[in-house]
Amino acid sequence: MSKHLTKRSEDYSKWYNELVLKADLAESSGVRGMMVIKPYGYAIWEKMQAELDKMFKDTGHQNAYFPLLIPKSYFSKEASHVDGFAKECAVVTHYRLKNGEDGEGIIVDEKAKLEEELIIRPTSETIIWDSYRKWIQSYRDLPLLINQWANVMRWEMRTRLFLRTAEFLWQEGHTAHATKEEAMEEAKKMQGVYATFAEEFMAMPVVKGEKSENERFAGALNTFTIEALMQDGKALQAGTSHFLGQNFAKAFDVKFVNKEGKQEHVWATSWGVSTRLMGALVMTHSDDHGLVLPPKLAPIQVVIVPIYKSEKQLDTIIEKMNPLINDLKAKGISVKLDHRTTHKPGWKFAEYELKGVPLRIAIGGRDLENNTVELARRDTLTKQTESQEGLAGKIEVLLDEIQNNLLIKAKQFREDHITKVDSFEEFKEVLEKKGGFIAAHWDGTSETEEKIKNLTKATIRCIPNDAKDEEGVCVYSGAKSSKRVLFAKAY
Amino acid sequence: MSKHLTKRSEDYSKWYNELVLKADLAESSGVRGMMVIKPYGYAIWEKMQAELDKMFKDTGHQNAYFPLLIPKSYFSKEASHVDGFAKECAVVTHYRLKNGEDGEGIIVDEKAKLEEELIIRPTSETIIWDSYRKWIQSYRDLPLLINQWANVMRWEMRTRLFLRTAEFLWQEGHTAHATKEEAMEEAKKMQGVYATFAEEFMAMPVVKGEKSENERFAGALNTFTIEALMQDGKALQAGTSHFLGQNFAKAFDVKFVNKEGKQEHVWATSWGVSTRLMGALVMTHSDDHGLVLPPKLAPIQVVIVPIYKSEKQLDTIIEKMNPLINDLKAKGISVKLDHRTTHKPGWKFAEYELKGVPLRIAIGGRDLENNTVELARRDTLTKQTESQEGLAGKIEVLLDEIQNNLLIKAKQFREDHITKVDSFEEFKEVLEKKGGFIAAHWDGTSETEEKIKNLTKATIRCIPNDAKDEEGVCVYSGAKSSKRVLFAKAY
Repeated sequence: MSKHLTKRSEDYSKWYNELVLKADLAESSGVRGMMVIKPYGYAIWEKMQAELDKMFKDTGHQNAYFPLLIPKSYFSKEASHVDGFAKECAVVTHYRLKNGEDGEGIIVDEKAKLEEELIIRPTSETIIWDSYRKWIQSYRDLPLLINQWANVMRWEMRTRLFLRTAEFLWQEGHTAHATKEEAMEEAKKMQGVYATFAEEFMAMPVVKGEKSENERFAGALNTFTIEALMQDGKALQAGTSHFLGQNFAKAFDVKFVNKEGKQEHVWATSWGVSTRLMGALVMTHSDDHGLVLPPKLAPIQVVIVPIYKSEKQLDTIIEKMNPLINDLKAKGISVKLDHRTTHKPGWKFAEYELKGVPLRIAIGGRDLENNTVELARRDTLTKQTESQEGLAGKIEVLLDEIQNNLLIKAKQFREDHITKVDSFEEFKEVLEKKGGFIAAHWDGTSETEEKIKNLTKATIRCIPNDAKDEEGVCVYSGAKSSKRVLFAKAY
Repeated sequence: MSKHLTKRSEDYSKWYNELVLKADLAESSGVRGMMVIKPYGYAIWEKMQAELDKMFKDTGHQNAYFPLLIPKSYFSKEASHVDGFAKECAVVTHYRLKNGEDGEGIIVDEKAKLEEELIIRPTSETIIWDSYRKWIQSYRDLPLLINQWANVMRWEMRTRLFLRTAEFLWQEGHTAHATKEEAMEEAKKMQGVYATFAEEFMAMPVVKGEKSENERFAGALNTFTIEALMQDGKALQAGTSHFLGQNFAKAFDVKFVNKEGKQEHVWATSWGVSTRLMGALVMTHSDDHGLVLPPKLAPIQVVIVPIYKSEKQLDTIIEKMNPLINDLKAKGISVKLDHRTTHKPGWKFAEYELKGVPLRIAIGGRDLENNTVELARRDTLTKQTESQEGLAGKIEVLLDEIQNNLLIKAKQFREDHITKVDSFEEFKEVLEKKGGFIAAHWDGTSETEEKIKNLTKATIRCIPNDAKDEEGVCVYSGAKSSKRVLFAKAY
């Protein structure tokens, strides 16, 4: 496949699609709307999973696994949930195929029709709360802090790799608590965990905030979100954490005996992030040369490319590099020595640039003489010559520096793209010409939100946690408002 | 739930079901044939996954992810595969529900009927080889060594927790090679990886062998298996590795240009183990008191139960145990201090026995005076008093000893239950009275195998890799045979 990428400035959307394919992250499958996550892409997802899983466990959660298929009737039990999720979904109606007559191949066996249709989970609140009824009797059984890593399916009409696919991978936390306060605290805590993960590992700054009623999860009383900003000025909802009140406990009749011996309904949260984060990662840092990966999530952190004139020189280089490789591995740094003779160094340079390897080491004949190497940073595309003495230590420092630099750059971009506006004219102008988040006063009504969305395609991304009290008037209706919220066009 | 377990000698099957429920490993869900894997059970599965994943990566494999749903027509492409897998399966026929009239709730929207039905993957050869066609062009693209961790579904009529469920979790390796020899070597190598995992981590000895034609995977030319023996004398197929020849490459038109510039079809393997291993683990070691877990797979390796007369004494005990806890954690040993005041020590003893925690530490007033603790081994149910001096080191040694002891015990049981028989009368008698593996001569025909199965319910579990050449006659037909194979009743 050609390494040529469409430039971001030419067509951002095309650039993204090409990059995901050319960097070998994922591709469309033969099944409508479903993707294949290729090994290089999956390796990044595995790193995300490992870090998140650790953070979940450190905050007291345990993993479990619940069924893929959910009876149709479960969805009907929670009124707002069914509207949000049970409509566009994959429906299992039969459990057997048979050989058709006249060589027509295998066909559905009409005798094997299910009495009740089963839905491939779009999210698991219903099946999980159906279990929790059996697990929770007393306050001693609470809190129940459970997470599931799973595949889910939502029958999307327009799909894009990672960003919106019919099937995607995610984790979904589902917790049960004795009090409203504790559930609310949990929902906010997990929003914090997501924000920390996004910043520390993805080097992706996020705004923590609360969703407006229109944008809440179907069945939630509050939805807390982390919102990231992509390079094209569009926002991306990177993770959400929901305070579900007692909605699911009531729908599935989950009660506990409190310390005073009285029965009460349980309080709930749910929270999730998905392979959508892969799309966010790509769109936060990458450039016209290809992927740029933060070192903490890069499957290969350092690649060594020998530049040699003879097999013998290649052998010398490999021998010279072995101690460095061992030193790096001892520090937990993943390193690849690409000694393939089937590809030229220049081809390899382009390949690892495309794949976003944070640091490239080139070593040739002159380096052998001078006891040096050439280090190239993927984030800045700068090169420097370094002595081989103490190189592993220098590389360790450099990787940290790259990780930090990516976050600083992304933060700067984000700061540059939060614009305060005080009129609807300005709102539309900024949205069209600059993009990014627009901090504007809003009157708090769904009606206004809806109208702004219809006129501009911008939605309220969140009411930021740190929004300051400020007297103002709604940018659309002119009604009074006490704080600014963030609008943006979004993925 | 009562801790009382049915005895194995009374009703092995009932004992198993009760144990899985009472030890909190898994339970049935509200969806027919599908289980919920509870946190304690899932924690064991996670440990299995982590070790296997490391072994796969150490042998050069990478993870990837392919779609859950497979178009019906894909199955028809490989003739024997469709017979084996496409029949009893979950069929997705529609992609939307709608509100019914007259308050009948949500119903299937007949307008949203799929043109071609989609099958929930029972195994992924077809969808994966459909991708491999795009990934493989040249010998340089080979070998392709990929593994997937996934859920799969087979519509089983009679289900049992872990052993046979409609949905289960597994890993499936799918590799592509340039030569027959290399593919065969890979298939055998993965059989070896599985055997090593079973013995080293599960403390479960297995027989490595080859399946007879009747018992092969649908679409395979050879199936290599690891067969374990449960305490009731029944065999359990714990993992299989298949040499698929060029069957799938031909069905999905996957060719490569070899070094000589000629096009050839690719050679394939696939291999898998599943949550069935959880059932095998339970049935290999557990006893009438509950679960017995090998330390290497135990979510909690050591539990500390304080025996106290006052809150103050409890505090003293906790304080005393903190350095030990830190020492154990530093050694990578997972330890839980159960200081709950809501449950009595005796209740806790029974609880951790039921849950198979390998080592229990009890510490009370007299121990405080004497600077001792009481150590109780779950495998032998023996107790010993130990000084608190250097305790972490002793525990580390003891855990190794327990791990080894479990393997030795299971090996002994297996050796005691491989019986050579030379007549069909003896075959039937041993099968009924003693169970286990029966090493008998077989004439090599499917016909004889089928007849023996119909008469005795015993099947050929495998032709062991280490079967010795030995002149003999088939136990059923009297025809000549050159080696013994292993028969058994099986899960």
